[in-house]
Amino acid sequence: METLFSSLGSRLTPPQITRLMRTALENPDLLSLAAGFTDTGTLPREEIREAVDWILTNPGGTESLQYGTNQGRPGLRFLLAERLAAQDAGPGAGDPASLFITNGSQQALSLALQTLCDPGDIVLVERPTYFVFLELARGLGIELHSLPAGEDGKTDANGLAGLLSGWKSEGRLARLKAVYLVSYFSNPSSCSLEEAEKERIGRVLADHGAYPALIEDAAYRDLYFDAPHPSRSILRLDSLAAFPRLYAGTCTKAFATGLKVGYAVCPDEAWRERMLYLKGQHDFGTANFNQAIVERVLETGDYDRCLEGLRQHYRRKRDALSAVFTSEDLGAMGWHWEMPQGGLYFWLRGPSGLDTGTESVFCRQALENGVLYVPGGLCYGDDPPPNYVRISFGVLQEAELAEAGRRFVRTAREFALG
Amino acid sequence: METLFSSLGSRLTPPQITRLMRTALENPDLLSLAAGFTDTGTLPREEIREAVDWILTNPGGTESLQYGTNQGRPGLRFLLAERLAAQDAGPGAGDPASLFITNGSQQALSLALQTLCDPGDIVLVERPTYFVFLELARGLGIELHSLPAGEDGKTDANGLAGLLSGWKSEGRLARLKAVYLVSYFSNPSSCSLEEAEKERIGRVLADHGAYPALIEDAAYRDLYFDAPHPSRSILRLDSLAAFPRLYAGTCTKAFATGLKVGYAVCPDEAWRERMLYLKGQHDFGTANFNQAIVERVLETGDYDRCLEGLRQHYRRKRDALSAVFTSEDLGAMGWHWEMPQGGLYFWLRGPSGLDTGTESVFCRQALENGVLYVPGGLCYGDDPPPNYVRISFGVLQEAELAEAGRRFVRTAREFALG
Repeated sequence: METLFSSLGSRLTPPQITRLMRTALENPDLLSLAAGFTDTGTLPREEIREAVDWILTNPGGTESLQYGTNQGRPGLRFLLAERLAAQDAGPGAGDPASLFITNGSQQALSLALQTLCDPGDIVLVERPTYFVFLELARGLGIELHSLPAGEDGKTDANGLAGLLSGWKSEGRLARLKAVYLVSYFSNPSSCSLEEAEKERIGRVLADHGAYPALIEDAAYRDLYFDAPHPSRSILRLDSLAAFPRLYAGTCTKAFATGLKVGYAVCPDEAWRERMLYLKGQHDFGTANFNQAIVERVLETGDYDRCLEGLRQHYRRKRDALSAVFTSEDLGAMGWHWEMPQGGLYFWLRGPSGLDTGTESVFCRQALENGVLYVPGGLCYGDDPPPNYVRISFGVLQEAELAEAGRRFVRTAREFALG
Repeated sequence: METLFSSLGSRLTPPQITRLMRTALENPDLLSLAAGFTDTGTLPREEIREAVDWILTNPGGTESLQYGTNQGRPGLRFLLAERLAAQDAGPGAGDPASLFITNGSQQALSLALQTLCDPGDIVLVERPTYFVFLELARGLGIELHSLPAGEDGKTDANGLAGLLSGWKSEGRLARLKAVYLVSYFSNPSSCSLEEAEKERIGRVLADHGAYPALIEDAAYRDLYFDAPHPSRSILRLDSLAAFPRLYAGTCTKAFATGLKVGYAVCPDEAWRERMLYLKGQHDFGTANFNQAIVERVLETGDYDRCLEGLRQHYRRKRDALSAVFTSEDLGAMGWHWEMPQGGLYFWLRGPSGLDTGTESVFCRQALENGVLYVPGGLCYGDDPPPNYVRISFGVLQEAELAEAGRRFVRTAREFALG
């Protein structure tokens, strides 16, 4: 059978966190800070029941059970484009005609890379970045490079210029097909990108005559705790108008993960059409019923009411975990972190020299202590540092979360002493 | 932008029926016999409302709004495997562990081809076959060949042996990666394959030392009118055990297209795992909520009650259209067809010499007369005959269907006279 596979089929490997997840399942006492799942208690059971009831008692609602269009429901696309315009203080390049509905924002990322990249092509990513994107890219045979970053974590323009010049002199600059930015409350870093930084990246690329696609993953943009991040999306930044751009958003993380309705905005018609042709071949369009549900809750305002509740809920959970790290003095054990202002993650840097990888003594000890995390090294396109950890406060309830935090700190303490 | 695309991205073209569908939208008086959509009037509005109500008033039901697993809900996989075993008079190679849930059966076909085929690889298809599969394959750069068929439409074993020998002598036999069979009430031909024919194909392949994947598309298997087709699936045929096999089914066509829940069974572990890794990168699993709905209606029996209603409904529609063809004497105008015993389509052969293609005079005249069909030539992997037509009785109601049939016959009459 092995010889039957395509080059893609041969490259595919199990998701890197499979082993960790299996460990979690095998040990029911383990508390998982690994999964990026959302909190089951906050899922909008009543709101969805009401929306379905309204849709299916309305005689016109039967069409929601029929095939929809490949691009997605016009009403939903209009509402999502309108929301995006409100967030961006103007419509920018995001209108309903350039917006399409996807099976979660993940599908948008996958359609984008498939239409852009052949094996050996290059994609630039942040340090750190979303690890499922990295697996998707590696499956496609893509060469991943990190955007050079300075001490402050911001893009190092000189470093980027050097990288581009190197590829130019090797005749490989045309192989640079995309730059992937998780710009709002990033998974895993919880950091957001300033407009100036997005523009700086664009300027260095343009200076070198490179116009790769810019892919902005905004999956966590709505999940802020106190205020939205003020940066407008890449769609609204005029200085980036010469780049093919894709903005990926979702109603999954921010409402109900079980519905799996995401969307993408791509003002570049040729690219968008190709992504849509491919989507048509893969599934003919996202389930129409789910789109109708999201359209309804956007219309009634239930979506926004749920979202506001979610924000408060996740803020409390962030605070609960933060309180443990502070009261148990994780900082004194050589760990450093920033307080997340949105999203679902703490991104912690351990003492230099510590190895947090899946096969490390530290990781095994954490499992022994009954807590699971995502090793930070999985979140790098190249040259992973050994000592980072991603911790999610998505799933666990406050009391469990505090206990999981204490178990993590206990592990850190054992290694600080050792 | 053009130079930015991958080879896949560059190969992608608009779906072939886009132009026809656009024509349909532009002319509201046009009656479409083209779309393979199901009948909106039969959609199970009340059954789905009740299922959702049950799921979401049940406290445990909230998990249906959370992420599910990539492979799909265990309960749903169990029920689907059980149904398949009942249809096949025994479990064969179809157990819940080898079954996974997809976004309609289309996604299963797409995962299968992506994991198997590189550009230049060969796939064998029936004459005629499902045209979206052909577009998917062409997008991947696959070389399509028809299974040689005799006068009776059945596979010509000698012809197939000749084809395989030719590839062997060219050193290309290893490029043959899959054989695709739409074995139950096929789209477009409405024909089904006998077990003996599936086994004959397998024997000729094995005789030549060729073991490509066998892909069986059973999307219409449940949509029989009087009795199920008696052939067991490829999963149950012991003589095919040496081949990697994929069986694709769906709850979409047979229940509610707007839910888009399909499934695949693949007993070959290495292949199945790779398809699942790829699915994980594309969407992490089909929407859990939709799976929970299908699981519920399978449990309550609502699924089967709806299906029984659908069968009677489509049989009546088939009869309505057939009555027009007979009473208006389409046969006397040089047309030939078999009575469909399941599925959604009449497959008509026009007089020899007639061209029914999208750009043909006949097609333009049909549009002029207010009726749209799918040109049969789109349904061939190679060497399309010019004079076939696919006509769907899925969407239109009986009165409209009869009127559309009369418009089609009027067109045929104009060309029979001309």
